[in-house]
Amino acid sequence: MPSSPVPSRTQVAIIGAGPAGLLLGQLLHCAGIETLIVERQSAGHVAARIRAGVIEQTTAEALDRAGVGERMHREGLPHDGVELCIDGHRHRIDLADLTDGKRVIVYGQTELTRDLMQARASADMPTVYEAQEVSVHGFDGARPFVRFRSEGQVHDVACDYIAGCDGFHGVCRPSIPPSAVRTFERVYPFGWLGLLVDAPPVADELIYVRSPRGFALCSMRSRTRSRYYLQCPLDHKVEQWSDEAFWNELRKRIDPQAAANLVTGPSIEKSIAPLRSFVSEPMRFGRLFLAGDAAHIVPPTGAKGLNLAAADVLLLADAFIEHYHEQSDAGIDHYSLHALARVWKAERFSWWLTSLMHKFPENAGFGERMQEAELAYLMNSRAAQQVLAENYVGLPMELH
Amino acid sequence: MPSSPVPSRTQVAIIGAGPAGLLLGQLLHCAGIETLIVERQSAGHVAARIRAGVIEQTTAEALDRAGVGERMHREGLPHDGVELCIDGHRHRIDLADLTDGKRVIVYGQTELTRDLMQARASADMPTVYEAQEVSVHGFDGARPFVRFRSEGQVHDVACDYIAGCDGFHGVCRPSIPPSAVRTFERVYPFGWLGLLVDAPPVADELIYVRSPRGFALCSMRSRTRSRYYLQCPLDHKVEQWSDEAFWNELRKRIDPQAAANLVTGPSIEKSIAPLRSFVSEPMRFGRLFLAGDAAHIVPPTGAKGLNLAAADVLLLADAFIEHYHEQSDAGIDHYSLHALARVWKAERFSWWLTSLMHKFPENAGFGERMQEAELAYLMNSRAAQQVLAENYVGLPMELH
Repeated sequence: MPSSPVPSRTQVAIIGAGPAGLLLGQLLHCAGIETLIVERQSAGHVAARIRAGVIEQTTAEALDRAGVGERMHREGLPHDGVELCIDGHRHRIDLADLTDGKRVIVYGQTELTRDLMQARASADMPTVYEAQEVSVHGFDGARPFVRFRSEGQVHDVACDYIAGCDGFHGVCRPSIPPSAVRTFERVYPFGWLGLLVDAPPVADELIYVRSPRGFALCSMRSRTRSRYYLQCPLDHKVEQWSDEAFWNELRKRIDPQAAANLVTGPSIEKSIAPLRSFVSEPMRFGRLFLAGDAAHIVPPTGAKGLNLAAADVLLLADAFIEHYHEQSDAGIDHYSLHALARVWKAERFSWWLTSLMHKFPENAGFGERMQEAELAYLMNSRAAQQVLAENYVGLPMELH
Repeated sequence: MPSSPVPSRTQVAIIGAGPAGLLLGQLLHCAGIETLIVERQSAGHVAARIRAGVIEQTTAEALDRAGVGERMHREGLPHDGVELCIDGHRHRIDLADLTDGKRVIVYGQTELTRDLMQARASADMPTVYEAQEVSVHGFDGARPFVRFRSEGQVHDVACDYIAGCDGFHGVCRPSIPPSAVRTFERVYPFGWLGLLVDAPPVADELIYVRSPRGFALCSMRSRTRSRYYLQCPLDHKVEQWSDEAFWNELRKRIDPQAAANLVTGPSIEKSIAPLRSFVSEPMRFGRLFLAGDAAHIVPPTGAKGLNLAAADVLLLADAFIEHYHEQSDAGIDHYSLHALARVWKAERFSWWLTSLMHKFPENAGFGERMQEAELAYLMNSRAAQQVLAENYVGLPMELH
């Protein structure tokens, strides 16, 4: 996908062409608002990134509204439940029953990104890939602009607003004056070793596994492509883990029936990711707005990352639409507060589920018994299961 | 209350004449089983101890079954709800609505102890007060006995079983061989400064207060006697806190309306208690059984201590009754496992509510935001409120 000709001005300049930036562009396009997306990586790189795969109802509705939900509904796998495997015994959490019929859709982020890229290309909206030396300016005043080098030439693109959808390592967050920012972080004492394989998933639904050997997750991207994870020490390297070692360890953590049903195969991809909780406040500074990973990171347990980014984008799109169509800045002025209220609830859920399901090296005594007591309680209390379920399928946008 | 003549043998020797030991004695008496209670302190000392005051439904039912619930029902205050005051705003948790009509009864432990002591005296059951050098023996075999000195004379009382209801500092737990025991502990980095006053309570229901200055609790023993608590540093001494300083600090932590309604007065009692989570496993060793604080301590947030002791005693009484009336040892054999399943759930709830409502000195950043997010979620989710309510009124005995 080649880069578009660069305009000299746009209404909303979006930094980052991941799912957050692309979805924002699409929602604004549907409302007749011009955007330019500037992305550091190539289109091919963005499209190939392997990430999350569980779509909440609110996210699905946002994709529908943006006109890109069709393939997700056709090819995605609706899941009405999720399984917890505790010390070798599986328990089903009936999401639909516990939340008056809500469910999630399993659909790989790579597929979603592809749908969004195609929609943007069809609509002929400008996207600059492989932009170098991207920087954002003037957002503390009335005349923000984005500067970058593309195909050897430096561009200054004037805009009304800048949307920082450029992820944790992007340029937007560090461009806010440090004195205006407060950050919050928790780093976990373990990582996730992930493996992607072209083999049918071990079960119809996701299985979150707590075992004496550590956490595992049996996930999937489709009926023929599976994604598995193992909790591993932070100092492990991918090279230490042969495919065989991975499968052997996974079999020891899951229940006997799942171990017997497991279809293995050569890994397509294998990587270790650290787990982190991170929030930067506020999410707006003048005419610069942060959305998604640019402002916050959740540990992957509970699959909130992509969904939280989509929720930010929904709020931000509505704020811009309100500005351009109704000449009201209420949405813009409340964006940070409104988004953060939701962000912190998802941070709490992700932290809680991570804390509940992992083995913490430092936590052998009282803390481990707290995990066990909470799990035993969860298995017997409908109210506790509802708390899990209503967070897992996604809190309603109004709840803040 | 003078000590009774000492028998040379009994069926169940109970160490400790606090509410746990007295309730066990009364339940066994109702079933025609003989007990001797041996207590280190004087009757006057036991009766004067100021402790908890919130009775769960299960505990109330146990007291009714023991035939000592009459005055509690007449003078106790049934509470259908509890209030949380978060940063100056009060929110009511409607316990009855959230739990299909369950409630708690506010009735001081001093009153309850008095009722139990009178019932035991009326039934002419033997209690030895001011017993010295109490020790327990032979419980790993078939012939346990209790040894103590009373009025200058050493007694060996043979028995079938020994029930250790002698609290955290009692002799029973340390008499189990250390190699058979595993203990779990969490100490909190603050204490509770408590004040008892003859003044009407500030509100009809209890108020649990989270404020930037720390936790507070507005509690009561009756319509004319109130009990207030302030979170304070562990190194504070009671002498540092004049009554006036206490009231001034409390006013700063509660909401303005409560501060305006607060009726103060000279303190009857004032003390600082540390907060501790503690569990010793197992709760049975041979013919020695632990119940209540002898086996576990919860922080007082959530008022689980006395109720947990009553639940242990219910299980233990039923186990003994099954043994003597049905010649089955199933209850005895399952006592530890059964009691611990319940204990750990109450430990979890007490730890969670303590963690949620207190200010942790080491926890200024991410942890504090987790508290805030959980409270914000709790205020908006009926499921989350149900989790709080069903634990607060007490999980059903069957749920383990």
